[in-house]
Amino acid sequence: MAYFQARTDLALEAREFVEDADKALHGVIVEEYETGDEEIHVTRVRITTKNGARLLGKPMGTYVTLEVPGLTEMGESSDVGEGHREVAEEISRQLSALLPEAEEAASVLVIGLGNRDVTADALGPAVVEHLCITRHMIREYGKNAFAREKMTMVSSMVPGVMAKTGMETAEIVAGIVKETSPDAVIVIDALAARSTKRLNRTIQISNTGIHPGSGVGNHRSAITEEVLGVPVIAMGVPTVVDAATIVGDALQRMHSELKETVFLKARDSMALTELNNMYVTAKDIDATIKRLSFTLAEALNITFGMQA
Amino acid sequence: MAYFQARTDLALEAREFVEDADKALHGVIVEEYETGDEEIHVTRVRITTKNGARLLGKPMGTYVTLEVPGLTEMGESSDVGEGHREVAEEISRQLSALLPEAEEAASVLVIGLGNRDVTADALGPAVVEHLCITRHMIREYGKNAFAREKMTMVSSMVPGVMAKTGMETAEIVAGIVKETSPDAVIVIDALAARSTKRLNRTIQISNTGIHPGSGVGNHRSAITEEVLGVPVIAMGVPTVVDAATIVGDALQRMHSELKETVFLKARDSMALTELNNMYVTAKDIDATIKRLSFTLAEALNITFGMQA
Amino acid sequence: MAYFQARTDLALEAREFVEDADKALHGVIVEEYETGDEEIHVTRVRITTKNGARLLGKPMGTYVTLEVPGLTEMGESSDVGEGHREVAEEISRQLSALLPEAEEAASVLVIGLGNRDVTADALGPAVVEHLCITRHMIREYGKNAFAREKMTMVSSMVPGVMAKTGMETAEIVAGIVKETSPDAVIVIDALAARSTKRLNRTIQISNTGIHPGSGVGNHRSAITEEVLGVPVIAMGVPTVVDAATIVGDALQRMHSELKETVFLKARDSMALTELNNMYVTAKDIDATIKRLSFTLAEALNITFGMQA
Amino acid sequence: MAYFQARTDLALEAREFVEDADKALHGVIVEEYETGDEEIHVTRVRITTKNGARLLGKPMGTYVTLEVPGLTEMGESSDVGEGHREVAEEISRQLSALLPEAEEAASVLVIGLGNRDVTADALGPAVVEHLCITRHMIREYGKNAFAREKMTMVSSMVPGVMAKTGMETAEIVAGIVKETSPDAVIVIDALAARSTKRLNRTIQISNTGIHPGSGVGNHRSAITEEVLGVPVIAMGVPTVVDAATIVGDALQRMHSELKETVFLKARDSMALTELNNMYVTAKDIDATIKRLSFTLAEALNITFGMQA
Repeated sequence: MAYFQARTDLALEAREFVEDADKALHGVIVEEYETGDEEIHVTRVRITTKNGARLLGKPMGTYVTLEVPGLTEMGESSDVGEGHREVAEEISRQLSALLPEAEEAASVLVIGLGNRDVTADALGPAVVEHLCITRHMIREYGKNAFAREKMTMVSSMVPGVMAKTGMETAEIVAGIVKETSPDAVIVIDALAARSTKRLNRTIQISNTGIHPGSGVGNHRSAITEEVLGVPVIAMGVPTVVDAATIVGDALQRMHSELKETVFLKARDSMALTELNNMYVTAKDIDATIKRLSFTLAEALNITFGMQA
Repeated sequence: MAYFQARTDLALEAREFVEDADKALHGVIVEEYETGDEEIHVTRVRITTKNGARLLGKPMGTYVTLEVPGLTEMGESSDVGEGHREVAEEISRQLSALLPEAEEAASVLVIGLGNRDVTADALGPAVVEHLCITRHMIREYGKNAFAREKMTMVSSMVPGVMAKTGMETAEIVAGIVKETSPDAVIVIDALAARSTKRLNRTIQISNTGIHPGSGVGNHRSAITEEVLGVPVIAMGVPTVVDAATIVGDALQRMHSELKETVFLKARDSMALTELNNMYVTAKDIDATIKRLSFTLAEALNITFGMQA
Repeated sequence: MAYFQARTDLALEAREFVEDADKALHGVIVEEYETGDEEIHVTRVRITTKNGARLLGKPMGTYVTLEVPGLTEMGESSDVGEGHREVAEEISRQLSALLPEAEEAASVLVIGLGNRDVTADALGPAVVEHLCITRHMIREYGKNAFAREKMTMVSSMVPGVMAKTGMETAEIVAGIVKETSPDAVIVIDALAARSTKRLNRTIQISNTGIHPGSGVGNHRSAITEEVLGVPVIAMGVPTVVDAATIVGDALQRMHSELKETVFLKARDSMALTELNNMYVTAKDIDATIKRLSFTLAEALNITFGMQA
Repeated sequence: MAYFQARTDLALEAREFVEDADKALHGVIVEEYETGDEEIHVTRVRITTKNGARLLGKPMGTYVTLEVPGLTEMGESSDVGEGHREVAEEISRQLSALLPEAEEAASVLVIGLGNRDVTADALGPAVVEHLCITRHMIREYGKNAFAREKMTMVSSMVPGVMAKTGMETAEIVAGIVKETSPDAVIVIDALAARSTKRLNRTIQISNTGIHPGSGVGNHRSAITEEVLGVPVIAMGVPTVVDAATIVGDALQRMHSELKETVFLKARDSMALTELNNMYVTAKDIDATIKRLSFTLAEALNITFGMQA
């Protein structure tokens, strides 16, 4: 049993955590395989029942995780890195599988969540920066004006965080979706992992959208198909670990032998609450965000027919 | 008569230009006065008839211009400048006169138009950066939680330019206005002047909103009360002169003695069209935008009751 | 006895830590007092002997710390904040006391250390952004051209981090000092504290310069009077806590009753090393850096005679 | 004869201008050819005598210009563009021909001149942003630690502009060169062209370094082999046209039939001086700088053995 409520945006970690206590999880189907020269480890977690959702603390839906050990080392010798293309193609494949069929997804709105002024939270804005935006050109010239087989109408938005806009991100997105009627919405965000080992090398794609209380910052209210009326795909990479989580986990590992009450008393006296609104991140997070944003943007550009 | 269609966002300049030819302008009422120690020259141009609008090439409405000769020199010894406070207060007075009464303007959405990656076009985003945003706090804690006499609910947005979003700015603003229902919208933008003498020292405030075809970039479609259903105040400072305008004006001044046909032929042969999408701006535009954005943001903060 | 080597840039914290074990510290003289309406708590730690330096793990010299509980809340209603001026003046007083006499410090080079692309490490570059730079003007027009009683020749540099320049910061600074011969160097940097309670509300000023191995990033090699030949004042605010330190401290507090060997074994099995190159910082670090940089820059501008 | 002193950083344009009046230029040797699928037009201007230098207003040395008509259109469908690689390789070839032999150029310092806060002037800082920096790694691990045939020790610096540092760029560079002893210096800068037709599609590489009075901003003092003691290669792209130049040229073209005195009087009455410190640039300069900086950085990375 967990005495400490660890926080993670990764369904993968939520499942591992629960599994420690109870191997048989009803309503949670897991599939795993390796792919490619870059040794991409793909895990597909499907939460199919309300019981599974409750157990994992995540909404029902599909969560695909790509673990790429080399992702943090890639690109040492250049901005973009050599294995980067292969990873982008695999992300594109997994993303396409979660998106509606091309005919029903002729137009997509990509939302870059997060705060561009906080490096670890700037993944969403950085990805949008590298996207090929086509909606205005297709509306002006028509699809036939471009020598491409397939071409999705792509628009994008960086809504900013509530402290700077005074509005919920969900309000902004809802207004824009109603006004511009995309067939699908893709939200890109920096995530929180439970373990530092997953930072900056794990990509999660899900068809469940974004739910309040998750994410690096406080900027996330529900951005889901239920609210917006169109499919919402969430794509992100964990760039931080919650500070209280990292301390709590360390304490717990040392206390596997101690009784719950002893532990809880000790923990409370330590005022983990002073770690609220604190997070742990890597010192070279600027280089990491730069590299990740190229890979994710290329994956999106491939998906939308804008990169051969 | 003008052979060359000079472009300006300033009603002040549009009027001067027409006046050369025809002193009596029906439907255009002009009022001028000096105020303050900083020698602020205020011009209020009211276009009251369709004829006036046609003559000036601007929609009917009120355009207040503050010319502050010292604005470009201010703040040499500090970020903010000494006369800056007085100018901010005068801007606030003029802005308040154009805004609906406080009771009807309990909430305001401020839009920072322009491209934050092009220095001369970044005035709007820079002003928004320095605003006190209160909507989310008032919604959470209520107005009474703050020890202030008067406090407007302020939200803000930097929509970005069409080349980066694929959407018209007007679509984005319309969606957000419908979703969040502010009582008024204020749009901040970098403007184009006709003369370099007006650059960076002239502030225009109007109650006509934003109309297609004006502004530094291509990012402006109509953002008006007619479209949004709430009053729209536009506030801006000219930071650029259209390159074709500056050359055309120079040619015209030299050719006052030549006949129209001779001039037109010469001008065409010179291919002013190669100057399309080119503008003239000052070399120290970064320092200018920084300084102006502080003054305009302070004016807004005073207006909204957030700065004593 | 400490089993875990906690890392802190604050002499204040280094002293507290040692004091736990041994109340009488030879070679360390401490003086404390409160000042001002903002309840600034000033601590002056003087390390006067090699023994004191060894005990505290800091070079001999004077370390002044200003603790300002309100610093994190200041400026809620505006960019700059109301108490901010008083704090800037106190910082200026403390800084002036450490600087050589005005006659001997007619010119000062301010170095903004850190990585401008990592928010928590961008304090130095942000402070330099707001400084009044006067060296080039005084060299061009002479001091008498300016209507100021006293005016220091101020130059500044943001050298960047080694990962981006390929050079030690100390190499860059040494080269520029030799070429431009300032009378003193002031280095501004984001610091690492041991406790999250000190983050963003503590200002340390010392006359010892910068020593390898300290600071947020890896960008610091020795920048001292010994190396440069002119006095070097270091000024900084802790914005991060080392991730291993925060976990190690939490473990230690729980284990005060356990024997050292038990603790060490447990700690090693926990691989704190995976926390290397990780740090803990606040979620709103962008707003914090913005606010702190205004206060520190104003303190410098006052000191150099550029702000009345 | 030219009545108006047009300003250009391109030896190519300086030569064209003089040639109008005098076809036979002693001391100026010009060579031209086309290369590659992208139709790169290469012009090599060699100024071999003092007379040639005086005629062209440029120091003696070699100036290679690559004109790439497609450079402004490249990369529409992606960040980087398809022809971009070929252009980068040709730049690398031309650059290598001007650099000392590899054995004598084992280490290179790349200087990104210009103001990163003014978009049109930010080419130098943007190129440096994308460079592979290796000096610190080679010093730590040795060349043999890297699986590369050839690898230059690369360091870089963005010195900033005098208004922000208070120092001449040349002082900063000289200090760093003395301290770190590179075998050669490469300075990257945004240039001024005389004609808008050359903007953003012309790359000039010369072995003459940087001379006072040229460039977009005021940040350039002499950075030459004479001053630094090592070869200095300058590489740049014109991103602006001087505003007075563009108006003066237009006037001159209209006045080919007028007498000099008439023209001069007219020109003076027009106060071109109000255009001092003003420049003309393209509206989409942000996208242009982004694209150019990738191409130039790739050319440098290829040259230094960091990109296959």
